Amino acid sequence: MKCTVCKGPAVIDVRRHNANFCAEHFLRLCRDQVARAIKDFDMLGRSDRVLVAVSGGKDSLAVWDILLGLGYQVDGLYVGLGIGDYSDSSGGFARAFATERGLHLVEVDLPTDHGFDIPTGARAAKRVPCSACGLSKRHLFDEAARSGGYDVVATGHNLDDEAAVLFGNVLHWQADYLGRQLPVLPARHGFPKKVKPLVRLGEREMAAYCVLRGIDYIVEECPMAAGNKHLGYKEALNAIEAQSPGSKHDFYFGFLDRGSHRFTPDAEVEQRDLGPCERCGVPTTGEVCAFCKLVARATAVPVELGRRT
Amino acid sequence: MKCTVCKGPAVIDVRRHNANFCAEHFLRLCRDQVARAIKDFDMLGRSDRVLVAVSGGKDSLAVWDILLGLGYQVDGLYVGLGIGDYSDSSGGFARAFATERGLHLVEVDLPTDHGFDIPTGARAAKRVPCSACGLSKRHLFDEAARSGGYDVVATGHNLDDEAAVLFGNVLHWQADYLGRQLPVLPARHGFPKKVKPLVRLGEREMAAYCVLRGIDYIVEECPMAAGNKHLGYKEALNAIEAQSPGSKHDFYFGFLDRGSHRFTPDAEVEQRDLGPCERCGVPTTGEVCAFCKLVARATAVPVELGRRT
Repeated sequence: MKCTVCKGPAVIDVRRHNANFCAEHFLRLCRDQVARAIKDFDMLGRSDRVLVAVSGGKDSLAVWDILLGLGYQVDGLYVGLGIGDYSDSSGGFARAFATERGLHLVEVDLPTDHGFDIPTGARAAKRVPCSACGLSKRHLFDEAARSGGYDVVATGHNLDDEAAVLFGNVLHWQADYLGRQLPVLPARHGFPKKVKPLVRLGEREMAAYCVLRGIDYIVEECPMAAGNKHLGYKEALNAIEAQSPGSKHDFYFGFLDRGSHRFTPDAEVEQRDLGPCERCGVPTTGEVCAFCKLVARATAVPVELGRRT
Repeated sequence: MKCTVCKGPAVIDVRRHNANFCAEHFLRLCRDQVARAIKDFDMLGRSDRVLVAVSGGKDSLAVWDILLGLGYQVDGLYVGLGIGDYSDSSGGFARAFATERGLHLVEVDLPTDHGFDIPTGARAAKRVPCSACGLSKRHLFDEAARSGGYDVVATGHNLDDEAAVLFGNVLHWQADYLGRQLPVLPARHGFPKKVKPLVRLGEREMAAYCVLRGIDYIVEECPMAAGNKHLGYKEALNAIEAQSPGSKHDFYFGFLDRGSHRFTPDAEVEQRDLGPCERCGVPTTGEVCAFCKLVARATAVPVELGRRT
């Protein structure tokens, strides 16, 4: 197997590009794909202060590494979610990455700062853990970006993640979710801009990137995610991808080209109805935002629920 | 396992309905689901002369049987495609069904009437066999319905089929195909109305229906379909369905409710550009329709290709 670029010995094949790469040209491919995503979707400016949300996993550490390599100003944000040993271990990888490279890592801890962990919060709110976790992270990313004066939050969502989320949204024809499933969400209503620079790269490539760059990351999946629907969607798409390499790319980018705009009005309806949460002030469609409701339930403080009329 | 309706011994469970059925109530379920699809989508009127396209497989023989049971006037149409033993065998099942019940079966034979079979046609036109077969069948169904004075062509596409076609269309975001993927296509431009009365029933149910009604059908899949993408889409959706029963139903009917109308304009653009094929007169977007091009290639008669300007 020879590198498609230099004909030297290849270390990885990328079937959807119908190409093989040596270490040097594979790392260049990854950087080029991120640079192209940033350019195509107008993700980042040179003067932007970027906060990358790092979990200690391959994707988020790789995106931090690549964005730094491309010359952007990027700090990290680690959110402790209180998921037992998994959180201890993932936080260790994030801290080690930052320390070894002299980078600034902002830390937020859900149990310390808000008095509950994800397993407790999910039980109390009768939500699946991934739902309680997702909404908590979104809230805490926003809060950290605002309090730290960052312009943009970057996350490590890769092509496999986005294709699987898209599949779930399409399976249920959730028009509002489809209307806002974009690689960039502009800053508005006090929310920072959000970008996904890895949308042109797959999970397998990000693992290879970390190995080749000597980045240590937590290999285990979150124990709370086992058996969730998102993983089922990934498996189904993996079967399709094995049959026709490039399917995930075409599915996701075909959506952005030819599907997404059809659902924009549904997402805008929701944006129009936003007002400040009466507890924390973030934009929400109800009187109290989903995160404050979760906090109240998880810490057993009663909250009066209602919707703005 | 007890029948959810009568508490007698059940013969089948239908997970997406979270219910079990005895033979009597399962057959009633199948008829009720077809009656509901006919009503919800205004598929058939009592005075319509219906031509059901039968392949000799479970779905098409079942839909013929159910439509007759519901009191509609239905003849069958068998199209011989020249796929070796498979065609001989499938034709035998269709003829036996009709003969045993004293029904009228119209027969058309692609090799006899048009001088080529599907394997030859696919090779000559450099199409995958399922593509050459699909376009041939659509043409021959239309032709038989018009020459026989039928109002409606009914096909045996079930929920599994439609969900898999939808998945393929969504994976590629084929807006024009999505715009016309409906359980009913109205009569227009000389095409008869087309209906899919089995859209509320799955593959497994249709097999059970045939067994319980004593209908002999060809069990083998078409040998030319092995390994095609459609079967891959079915497998992927089966995995999702096993994880969450009802997923296929929600995917397809959610599309009809909340997705389909967004793609209608793309299908209408194509409709607007239709004119008569200069060889056979059917509506087409080019000068010569896809079937006449296939005939020309398969029988080695040169055809001048071009598009209407």
